Amino acid sequence: MSEQPGKPDAKAKVLVAGATGYTGALAASLVWRHPQLELTAITSRSETGTKLSDLYPRHQVPMTLRELNLDEIEDVDAAIVAYPHGASAPVVAEMRGLGLLVVDLSADFRLLHLPTYEQYYGPHSAPELLEGAVYGLPEINRTAIAEAELVANPGCYPTAAILGLAPLAEAGLIDDVVIDAKSGVSGAGRDGGEATSFVTITENVSAYKPSGHRHRPEIIDQLSRLDADGAGPSALTFVPHLMPLDQGELVSCYVKPARPVEQAELDELYGARYENEEFVNVSSTPPGVRDVRETNRCSIQALAGDDRIVVFSVIDNLWKGASSQAIQNLNLMLGLDESAGIS
Amino acid sequence: MSEQPGKPDAKAKVLVAGATGYTGALAASLVWRHPQLELTAITSRSETGTKLSDLYPRHQVPMTLRELNLDEIEDVDAAIVAYPHGASAPVVAEMRGLGLLVVDLSADFRLLHLPTYEQYYGPHSAPELLEGAVYGLPEINRTAIAEAELVANPGCYPTAAILGLAPLAEAGLIDDVVIDAKSGVSGAGRDGGEATSFVTITENVSAYKPSGHRHRPEIIDQLSRLDADGAGPSALTFVPHLMPLDQGELVSCYVKPARPVEQAELDELYGARYENEEFVNVSSTPPGVRDVRETNRCSIQALAGDDRIVVFSVIDNLWKGASSQAIQNLNLMLGLDESAGIS
Amino acid sequence: MSEQPGKPDAKAKVLVAGATGYTGALAASLVWRHPQLELTAITSRSETGTKLSDLYPRHQVPMTLRELNLDEIEDVDAAIVAYPHGASAPVVAEMRGLGLLVVDLSADFRLLHLPTYEQYYGPHSAPELLEGAVYGLPEINRTAIAEAELVANPGCYPTAAILGLAPLAEAGLIDDVVIDAKSGVSGAGRDGGEATSFVTITENVSAYKPSGHRHRPEIIDQLSRLDADGAGPSALTFVPHLMPLDQGELVSCYVKPARPVEQAELDELYGARYENEEFVNVSSTPPGVRDVRETNRCSIQALAGDDRIVVFSVIDNLWKGASSQAIQNLNLMLGLDESAGIS
Amino acid sequence: MSEQPGKPDAKAKVLVAGATGYTGALAASLVWRHPQLELTAITSRSETGTKLSDLYPRHQVPMTLRELNLDEIEDVDAAIVAYPHGASAPVVAEMRGLGLLVVDLSADFRLLHLPTYEQYYGPHSAPELLEGAVYGLPEINRTAIAEAELVANPGCYPTAAILGLAPLAEAGLIDDVVIDAKSGVSGAGRDGGEATSFVTITENVSAYKPSGHRHRPEIIDQLSRLDADGAGPSALTFVPHLMPLDQGELVSCYVKPARPVEQAELDELYGARYENEEFVNVSSTPPGVRDVRETNRCSIQALAGDDRIVVFSVIDNLWKGASSQAIQNLNLMLGLDESAGIS
Repeated sequence: MSEQPGKPDAKAKVLVAGATGYTGALAASLVWRHPQLELTAITSRSETGTKLSDLYPRHQVPMTLRELNLDEIEDVDAAIVAYPHGASAPVVAEMRGLGLLVVDLSADFRLLHLPTYEQYYGPHSAPELLEGAVYGLPEINRTAIAEAELVANPGCYPTAAILGLAPLAEAGLIDDVVIDAKSGVSGAGRDGGEATSFVTITENVSAYKPSGHRHRPEIIDQLSRLDADGAGPSALTFVPHLMPLDQGELVSCYVKPARPVEQAELDELYGARYENEEFVNVSSTPPGVRDVRETNRCSIQALAGDDRIVVFSVIDNLWKGASSQAIQNLNLMLGLDESAGIS
Repeated sequence: MSEQPGKPDAKAKVLVAGATGYTGALAASLVWRHPQLELTAITSRSETGTKLSDLYPRHQVPMTLRELNLDEIEDVDAAIVAYPHGASAPVVAEMRGLGLLVVDLSADFRLLHLPTYEQYYGPHSAPELLEGAVYGLPEINRTAIAEAELVANPGCYPTAAILGLAPLAEAGLIDDVVIDAKSGVSGAGRDGGEATSFVTITENVSAYKPSGHRHRPEIIDQLSRLDADGAGPSALTFVPHLMPLDQGELVSCYVKPARPVEQAELDELYGARYENEEFVNVSSTPPGVRDVRETNRCSIQALAGDDRIVVFSVIDNLWKGASSQAIQNLNLMLGLDESAGIS
Repeated sequence: MSEQPGKPDAKAKVLVAGATGYTGALAASLVWRHPQLELTAITSRSETGTKLSDLYPRHQVPMTLRELNLDEIEDVDAAIVAYPHGASAPVVAEMRGLGLLVVDLSADFRLLHLPTYEQYYGPHSAPELLEGAVYGLPEINRTAIAEAELVANPGCYPTAAILGLAPLAEAGLIDDVVIDAKSGVSGAGRDGGEATSFVTITENVSAYKPSGHRHRPEIIDQLSRLDADGAGPSALTFVPHLMPLDQGELVSCYVKPARPVEQAELDELYGARYENEEFVNVSSTPPGVRDVRETNRCSIQALAGDDRIVVFSVIDNLWKGASSQAIQNLNLMLGLDESAGIS
Repeated sequence: MSEQPGKPDAKAKVLVAGATGYTGALAASLVWRHPQLELTAITSRSETGTKLSDLYPRHQVPMTLRELNLDEIEDVDAAIVAYPHGASAPVVAEMRGLGLLVVDLSADFRLLHLPTYEQYYGPHSAPELLEGAVYGLPEINRTAIAEAELVANPGCYPTAAILGLAPLAEAGLIDDVVIDAKSGVSGAGRDGGEATSFVTITENVSAYKPSGHRHRPEIIDQLSRLDADGAGPSALTFVPHLMPLDQGELVSCYVKPARPVEQAELDELYGARYENEEFVNVSSTPPGVRDVRETNRCSIQALAGDDRIVVFSVIDNLWKGASSQAIQNLNLMLGLDESAGIS
């Protein structure tokens, strides 16, 4: 590792592994422009030798993708890993063995319990790292992230859902909850084939994976941790939908409260919870995903609606739902200003 | 009225009042192409003198819009009225006074109770017609529609929601329900201003009117009538969202069942309920709105999901949600084949 | 062949070969609904055993795709072939050997000269059929099509361009011409990969294949045949662009006229040329692709513009640019009403 | 005026007049984030009292719109004016009278000759300022802009077209040219009504104002100035088209060269012309508007095509085509780094 990351004159050196997908490429671009980080290498399993700016002209990162070979990569302080679930754990383990700080964008270190992981994702190749991994939602876990060496960057839906529900969960107000999530197509990744072709998606909308989605246990885990009594919701239904848009995600949460709650109490609860959070906005009207497009922000409205509390929470799935949140986490881990390079 | 509508050689003569909006223009187009209907006149309050084919080139209806003057319009058997809520009732009353069969696309005759109407829409100018009006959802009310002289065409959201939930309601299986509805922009009508401009809508998605929407009491009314004990759901939350697409509507319904229900029972229930319905399809995968674009069909999946029964129901909001359903109703009222001109 | 196609009580029997792509599936759907055609079989090279209604729910064709085996397919009168360029010729040759009438959607029989074909598409496996093949643009070649046994269905761009330019070409008025073409994504077919993914296409527009596009020689061929002296344009630039829409195509043609031409002469020329054509509309304003969406129509404006004659011509690339034009050709070949099943 | 704009510790104070439209709001946002500019006031003629962040949540400019009253606005160094054509000139005149540096986004000071202006835009209220105004295309006019006190920010189409054609014009290589321009809808402004509604635009594309567009004389003016002999093109056809996208503009230019030109000469010409331009990229493939979305960049390909030189030039119409180019101009006028706040 290089010395003294975060010191005035020394930029921390960052590797982005898996930089050909949407989130890896965006993470590379954010590191490239970051005033206190230096992008030392970008790697790819499929497109080595290609300039990233040829794949993503708009990002304008004029570096060439190479194979990941940790032996050759000296003098790196931290890595952002954007590998598929399952493929990430062994790479992360190797990096941790070399002492690198790691932010992992996969699900490999997000779930609290190994059996749950294995049920949804299959065998885990580095279970010994699970205990030390910190769930990377800074508005919830800021202190732990700052001390962590391995941060599991949250899923996009959990990011929006947990930020939207945290004030209610912390107040013990959630009895049961229905989460209807709506995402742009970039969430499906770059290799979607006909399922994500323009002709399939435009002028269309539908649910997908309507039961057993992998983000459901992740949301339940975190809501349970926030709940004073650790119980979590009595029931949680989570259904994602695909929308004809590129980037952006709205989760609409329908909460049966544990006791009657008035609008004034909701305003007070959300206002107090997020008043010092730079990246969370409490809105008095239904937020649109366009409001937060290409930002690290989350905008939330909580409403005493017809028969239920209704919470809308919007993020950009590639930004706060993935890559800019990874930078936010890395800033914390490196002792930098939390908003450096992403505001 | 002309004689013998429905006889082999006599086409029923139909007036479309309010043919400049999306639903009125489409209704005129469907009548124009209908093998057993004759479009005798199209009227407009704002665009008289204009050819409809200039406003809607694709519909290719080469008739000129004129003022509605019932004194001058002789020999009409039936009218489809596409006026705004409130403006429709007096026109319908006048038409009924002349003996015309009427399908009304507004909300003026949809609700069962006058006070509920007045709460959501304001004063009603023809309350005496409410009792005789029939709610025009043929898959629910076929017999009554066939005998009706005034049919209230359902709202687009209620059409999708009620068709999706009817099998559960009829079986007394709904305890509470959350309805998250997603609509294309044409549902907002032709005069939306900046709120429905391309720049506002594209790459965006948000809820609107998240509490107190007018379609909620309409859905509650009809679900209560379907329920064996007339009670209806113990709670019903309805939240509509605007999507970046033109035509199409998906309602995602999350039902807490009155007792545990397995997938097999759902399959049996929905299969039996709709097996003879030409315009309802029971799907084993989440239907997309594109599947039913520009058709009179509704496609439904019912799923024993995580903690709730999840029902997806898709329609084209301008077709089954408005204009083609109006033709379906008119076919029934005139004794024609129910699917004439719309399949 | 079955006897008496076109007789009142005998529907002509039609096979659609290659029904899994967009144009083949649409052709099958149009045959399925055609009052005087019977869809006897649909074949596929990749998806045998699948119901077409599972691939294309909206088309609602409940037939199963099978392998093409002409030995087993008895009693077929005609075939529509939707195979890739090059793969089509041998199949067409086999079908012609069995006496079937054939409409071929590929480019294999479109070009007048074998060397030109080979330059753009590679070796031709059935050159002996080229001479008897008729170019299937009914508004230009109606009589020849009616007598043909093999019709080469035009490319989508040539359809729009030739219909737009024919009145000028026939009057010998084209000196040079620039054709800037704009197409929806469905023109690229179903297997586009990342190049046609939603994320790549939305909020984007770019040219593709900006020189040497295969449709250029096809357009030159036909314009030269229309030209009284057979010379064709002195120069022709053709550049296609991909647009963020599904179906629809606009060609904007910029003609340097051989002599000065006033607007009145253009109006006279286009009005006279197309006044009896059901599927061609002469517009006095710039037509939009939406005007002709999912129709067999072409809408054209010819304008004495700044320094050049400007001609806009719009079609639906999958309909008039492919599948519905195939039905129009088949209607002519079978002696049916030209507009049967497509108006 | 405040003293010493551009000095290390003194930010230049900037007023944005007309900040409710798309370009004015974006200009305000760019000034707000600019490291060396201070946004002192934002004004509106229609929405005074509203916070800009309520109109444009994504821009996050927490200032309140007020009426323009120059008497009350002290201590301002420069203004960006985003008023409609015609309404801008009197305001600019007043500002100039007070000594403010002005970048005007309207067309009021763009054309070289008053009669041409009056033909396209009507009477001019401050013709005395025309002579001193500098056309604000930095890649063409950098030196003059740096010394100017009034800069006329170019139209969006002229920006893309002139940058794309400048190397050919300067080399005297343009005989005639056809410019087929394609723009996103934001170019039509915020108050488009039904013409720019989502339903009108989506799945559509058409030309508009196909002859006599106001940007044509602006392009001719500038190409003539670049031409060594001042003659300009012998013919120039300019036709804009509206596309179903939000921001972005592609101009496809078809040049009949004055003499034959090979690809190698084009590569040399464009490479040399733009090698030192930070905001112009010379591409070897057709650029897409998405490549430059929300950047101040222009990406250009010049191609020796079939019978013509084909030049593609893409910009973001709201950025390089309007607001970020205004900042680029203001940076030059104030002696700042040209790319400050926009790279």
